[in-house]
Amino acid sequence: MNQLDNLLKSIIAHVNVNLREFVDVGPHIRHLVDNDKLANFYGFYALTPHHPLYFKFTESCLSGTYFLGKCVATRSIIYKSDIRGDELKRRGDVVSVDGLNIRIYDDEIIFIRDSFLLKTLVHNNSHDPENLEKFSIRNTVALHWSNIHGSTMEGCFLGPFATVDLTSSHNCVFGAYSYTQASDLSNVYVPPGRIWIKVENGFEFTYQFDDKVLEKYIAYETGSAPTGLLMDYVEDRKGDFIPIYSSVQENPVPVPPGASLSPYAVVKGQTRIDRNVLVAQRAYLEEAWLGEGSNAQENCYIVHSSLEGEDVTAHGGKIIHTHLGRHIFVGFNAFLHGSPENPLQVGDNSIIMPHTIIDAEEPLEIPANSLVWGYIQNADDLAKNSIPLEEMEKVDGELEMGSMKFSGKGKMFADVFRHRIQHILEENGAFYDGKNGKNGAGHAQKNHDMAFNTMQPYPSGQLRGLYPGLEISPTSLDYFAHIDD
Amino acid sequence: MNQLDNLLKSIIAHVNVNLREFVDVGPHIRHLVDNDKLANFYGFYALTPHHPLYFKFTESCLSGTYFLGKCVATRSIIYKSDIRGDELKRRGDVVSVDGLNIRIYDDEIIFIRDSFLLKTLVHNNSHDPENLEKFSIRNTVALHWSNIHGSTMEGCFLGPFATVDLTSSHNCVFGAYSYTQASDLSNVYVPPGRIWIKVENGFEFTYQFDDKVLEKYIAYETGSAPTGLLMDYVEDRKGDFIPIYSSVQENPVPVPPGASLSPYAVVKGQTRIDRNVLVAQRAYLEEAWLGEGSNAQENCYIVHSSLEGEDVTAHGGKIIHTHLGRHIFVGFNAFLHGSPENPLQVGDNSIIMPHTIIDAEEPLEIPANSLVWGYIQNADDLAKNSIPLEEMEKVDGELEMGSMKFSGKGKMFADVFRHRIQHILEENGAFYDGKNGKNGAGHAQKNHDMAFNTMQPYPSGQLRGLYPGLEISPTSLDYFAHIDD
Repeated sequence: MNQLDNLLKSIIAHVNVNLREFVDVGPHIRHLVDNDKLANFYGFYALTPHHPLYFKFTESCLSGTYFLGKCVATRSIIYKSDIRGDELKRRGDVVSVDGLNIRIYDDEIIFIRDSFLLKTLVHNNSHDPENLEKFSIRNTVALHWSNIHGSTMEGCFLGPFATVDLTSSHNCVFGAYSYTQASDLSNVYVPPGRIWIKVENGFEFTYQFDDKVLEKYIAYETGSAPTGLLMDYVEDRKGDFIPIYSSVQENPVPVPPGASLSPYAVVKGQTRIDRNVLVAQRAYLEEAWLGEGSNAQENCYIVHSSLEGEDVTAHGGKIIHTHLGRHIFVGFNAFLHGSPENPLQVGDNSIIMPHTIIDAEEPLEIPANSLVWGYIQNADDLAKNSIPLEEMEKVDGELEMGSMKFSGKGKMFADVFRHRIQHILEENGAFYDGKNGKNGAGHAQKNHDMAFNTMQPYPSGQLRGLYPGLEISPTSLDYFAHIDD
Repeated sequence: MNQLDNLLKSIIAHVNVNLREFVDVGPHIRHLVDNDKLANFYGFYALTPHHPLYFKFTESCLSGTYFLGKCVATRSIIYKSDIRGDELKRRGDVVSVDGLNIRIYDDEIIFIRDSFLLKTLVHNNSHDPENLEKFSIRNTVALHWSNIHGSTMEGCFLGPFATVDLTSSHNCVFGAYSYTQASDLSNVYVPPGRIWIKVENGFEFTYQFDDKVLEKYIAYETGSAPTGLLMDYVEDRKGDFIPIYSSVQENPVPVPPGASLSPYAVVKGQTRIDRNVLVAQRAYLEEAWLGEGSNAQENCYIVHSSLEGEDVTAHGGKIIHTHLGRHIFVGFNAFLHGSPENPLQVGDNSIIMPHTIIDAEEPLEIPANSLVWGYIQNADDLAKNSIPLEEMEKVDGELEMGSMKFSGKGKMFADVFRHRIQHILEENGAFYDGKNGKNGAGHAQKNHDMAFNTMQPYPSGQLRGLYPGLEISPTSLDYFAHIDD
């Protein structure tokens, strides 16, 4: 009896206790990943002098997963996921919650228990004001390419390509390719293809993808890997990652000062990286030009495309045969699919909302300062699925365009995005010039000093695929610093 | 201030407390290895289902070192060493000490504290009858290519290429290329080039290398890396290991059933590996034929040579342009240096004692069933430095040949070696045919199921070169095995 099977049963039981009124997660994950696959990849973690360090892994399978920062994982299967704790709060930080200032008493830690995460990104930090030191993911199943971003969760199910962003969730189901940002939720079902952003007493934005569009791009049937064009795009390029994980590679292209390129990123063709660019692990660049201060985060694909500068490609964003001007935000799991015949251009300062699909059947040009969402194939779609930010700011009340509904304060909505883009650029070190504050070092600069460590599961026997207990803790200066000459 | 410097100071202080009457180890190690080197290599450990597992590393530098089994290392620098705990005793084993049977109460562990080990092999298990569960190395400095084999030690200094074998040592100095096997020692100085084997009430064997020979093969000056032909041989081939450590390699030659070839061994040219052969990490094979049941242990070089079968090449043995018959023992750090013009042949069942140098200036043939020691260049030397085992068995009293002195029971001496060779072959799985006992699985078979894990030091800052705290512990079946369907 392979104990991976028992671990899976244990996880299913724990998640089902929470979700029993919504869903039985058993059929979703029971036969989803072969034990052979779970046993065949190494996990890895980075060691840096810049981030508080602590890992403790117990009775878990971590194959293919990357860890950074501080993380405790217990009785979980975390497969080919990225647990990136470089934006965790530090002891002494002050967080403002509804006007109350809360001082962080300990370096924050990511805490994963009784959960199944499959090619999932976990990033940022806890936005649960009641648990600011612990970014907790418990009794949760997250499927292929889902994003758990700044979202603590207990008893949740995320379908493939689902994103839960800055939302504390308890007993919730998030359908495939849904995007949720709603502060905190309990016992909520978010249907597949729903884009939902809500700020209490501020605004609410919803968009619903058509079933046929979902079928074409991200189709999901219980117990199977998702299918559709988004998944095909990723699967077709999977092989390019294999050599990356089996040898130590030198930078394949020049990396200028202040920029960093993860050794676990794919780089093909004539790719160019400018100053202060961040390319994260599991990013994929082919014939890509990343202008100064741009970034390509985890699971991004930037192919035959150029980014002029200070452009953000959020986790899972895909940019193909596309030219981005300056200071553009491409949200989580957005799919910008131009082609040589039908290229795509995006003007300066535009916001491509998370989970936007632009699959150009004609050359498309998005004007500067646009807000863009939904599903777009041509100029007509674009007209229905975008609005000048200036117009958006004037909205105060209801706005309905195609499958999009907005209510509330448009100015606040635009400002929330703008503020976030600025914050992301700062965190990533886009403006780095050696000073402090917004010009200080970010991930692009700090990622230079990373040492990668691999860890493997038991190679055979009953424990095959399970990892031994691992605890990695910082070395203190206390002893050494007091040795006299 | 790099804290590696303080760690080194701490180690020097601890070792000097023990050795203050013999030596100040400070000048020996203070500037021996650059901090850059200490920081530039990864350490690694193997995970197998066959060996008890436990590692705990604290405030140490482990760069380039390989760990297997159970090991605690504290405030030590263990550089490019092999800490191989696959022959540690298990809970429940029974050890006989002078007719007393002692039951082992816990799986044995290697315990290294306040020590500096440089390209050192630590293997086998504690032969200290008072500490059978703890193979302890404390306050000790061991230099290039020394062997700590079955020897607990506290407050010891081992010069380059020194071997301490099955000897518990307290406050001892072992000179360069000395070999000591003497049960237990306290406050003893063993000069460079001394070969010394003593069994109380049994026999005593000593051989002393001439100073000029040492100068030519292993010259050591305080604070420098050793020089001489043995060191040159190793240094000249160092580059061949680089690709081994920077990529995952497939078996470069066929590996038949029951054999194992470490991915961290160098294999060049037309090399052939037969059944039940063991090739350990950091072995070097070039145009080598390893016949059934032969082995090449750590830091061995087998070059343009053939081993017919059931031949043992102990740690650090070098076999060049040499043909070995069957069932031959080549001891620790022996240097068998034939050449195309002056090949070397060794007949069946011969014993080449540890630290024997045969540097053939004419073709040399060692008859079957010989015991060989010392320094040999030609037939005349061979006559003075070997004896038929049958003759040796008849000795009861004194025997003097050249620089060799023997007293005691020759039969016991020969039997000790024969017993040991048999034991080594069994442990290594040389006779494996799927049964139990001496035909059971040994290292050659068990090494198939190894997963290698890498660990890196802090890449920069004050802690550069130091490792974070690491604790790796076994996963228990307790929780999983009781999950119901």
